[in-house]
Amino acid sequence: MSLSISRIGSFHIPGRTVTVAGIEPRDAILTPGGPMRTIDQNGEHEIEQMYVQYVQLAQPRARYPLLMWHGGGMTGVTWEDTPDGRPGWQMAFLRAGHDVYVSDAVERGRASWSCLPDIYGGPPFGRTKQECWEGFRVGPDRSWDANADRRHAFEGQRFPVDAFDSFVHQTVPRWTVNDAPTQTAYDQLIARVGPAVVMAHSQAGNFAFTAALHAPNKVRAVIGVEPSGTPTPDEVDVTRVRDIPHLVLWGDYVDASPRWTGYKARIDAYGDALRAAGGSLDVIDLPSRGIHGNSHFPMMDDNSDEIAALIQNWIEEKGLMT
Amino acid sequence: MSLSISRIGSFHIPGRTVTVAGIEPRDAILTPGGPMRTIDQNGEHEIEQMYVQYVQLAQPRARYPLLMWHGGGMTGVTWEDTPDGRPGWQMAFLRAGHDVYVSDAVERGRASWSCLPDIYGGPPFGRTKQECWEGFRVGPDRSWDANADRRHAFEGQRFPVDAFDSFVHQTVPRWTVNDAPTQTAYDQLIARVGPAVVMAHSQAGNFAFTAALHAPNKVRAVIGVEPSGTPTPDEVDVTRVRDIPHLVLWGDYVDASPRWTGYKARIDAYGDALRAAGGSLDVIDLPSRGIHGNSHFPMMDDNSDEIAALIQNWIEEKGLMT
Repeated sequence: MSLSISRIGSFHIPGRTVTVAGIEPRDAILTPGGPMRTIDQNGEHEIEQMYVQYVQLAQPRARYPLLMWHGGGMTGVTWEDTPDGRPGWQMAFLRAGHDVYVSDAVERGRASWSCLPDIYGGPPFGRTKQECWEGFRVGPDRSWDANADRRHAFEGQRFPVDAFDSFVHQTVPRWTVNDAPTQTAYDQLIARVGPAVVMAHSQAGNFAFTAALHAPNKVRAVIGVEPSGTPTPDEVDVTRVRDIPHLVLWGDYVDASPRWTGYKARIDAYGDALRAAGGSLDVIDLPSRGIHGNSHFPMMDDNSDEIAALIQNWIEEKGLMT
Repeated sequence: MSLSISRIGSFHIPGRTVTVAGIEPRDAILTPGGPMRTIDQNGEHEIEQMYVQYVQLAQPRARYPLLMWHGGGMTGVTWEDTPDGRPGWQMAFLRAGHDVYVSDAVERGRASWSCLPDIYGGPPFGRTKQECWEGFRVGPDRSWDANADRRHAFEGQRFPVDAFDSFVHQTVPRWTVNDAPTQTAYDQLIARVGPAVVMAHSQAGNFAFTAALHAPNKVRAVIGVEPSGTPTPDEVDVTRVRDIPHLVLWGDYVDASPRWTGYKARIDAYGDALRAAGGSLDVIDLPSRGIHGNSHFPMMDDNSDEIAALIQNWIEEKGLMT
């Protein structure tokens, strides 16, 4: 079945200009067969911008654009093809009738990053394959082995483990010091394309909950897919978002992971605070619905279309489709 | 006018696995409001992969997919919206009937990069805004000023100078030491999706000319948009590509830039070698056709659609459309 689109394109949300001086120039050849040239990085640079790629339908059914925000150490590729080559949630929600905006957060992917000294106030880091395997609940803690024949996944695991390397290709280095400019960029994105619905995975959960608090007149729903954090209820005014429907979706094996048990408890507490303020936070806990085997990346698991449909049903119920 | 597509998606071309040891673990908070965790990067990582995003039409008119390869310090965003927000060449060539594959080369954009010590054998660098302005022939050498009111562009410049910061947002850091894995990744891309037509900008010109030499049975045409390098004719067997149509397109102000005069002379020599071997390299020199004012990024200039149409005409003439 073909999809009728009006446009594919992209833009960047601006960050800020920095001027650097005192970096020693050096010589290098920049293109194979080209001449030696002097590289001098002293001068003005743009930093902290964010990348946004959009696909607009000829006839969207959704009332508002759907913004898809990736998690930590990832890019917007999270929402594209699954590691084993099936269509991902970008396609699923386009087919469901949404204009889709997939972003790469500040210092991730096509947002670019700065290699200038002393810009970020700390070093970046990359995840090992073991950290991906265990931290994303593909297998239990200490189940990793560099030899694929000797590692083991959780029983019933739906993540495409045979394509695990393809998943790891999607990961990117990250810093831990750029939450503020990242939040600013997301807020600016909503100001630019809102009103909008935000779907946020993992690390982006907190950015999405916070964006709703910052612009309750522009965010029409927040969908947290395995969110790893929330604002601290005591430090924010959750009454601001009591008219915004919130949804949180959880995969399997959370109880087997102390890390994720802790993250989930924080989300539960935020839900309690929202409800106490007269708001709402719905929860789709897949195992308690009899859907077992989902990892931290349900958009890549073998039942990804089924889970997208559950979320789409919720969106329909909330009156967000025409 | 809407576009009927069958699928949007992406994949990575694999690189290789590295195992690192001896990196000091450190503690960090990874998600706002989350707990302190230990970051330990020792273990296995994937490096040197390449990102490829495709848009497949419901009914392509082109015989082969069109692969669009960006230049140095850039990503596939080169082919998306222009800095001032007009549709770019990705859209132009989709509308012309091509399945389009836009890639981010090794260590650029969504291909990811490695922050591990001693992986690349050299430091990265980023371009200053001045280097972009002058190196890409927006303005002459020494025309840059941090104050936009005091810088000047070439007379008749078609690049959207008022959106210059938006252009700079697209730039990414680069290394100078990864030509070999980059070429390997491009060669693997052609092996995977070929036969194909390759359109390559600037630094990617050399990779495209070389890819044709490596797989003359899989590359159906090479289109160099302002290519900055070629293989050295004496070191390769150009008879291998004598049946492959080559096109090179040049913007304006080349004569005003010693750097680009030198690059162009090398391309001219490669064209001479191709012709001497019985092959072909056609040249669209825009100024000599009476089209003035184009920068190093004709896909972003205000006549970008007109230039895309010139290339599309050449593709039609070469019998590459059904």
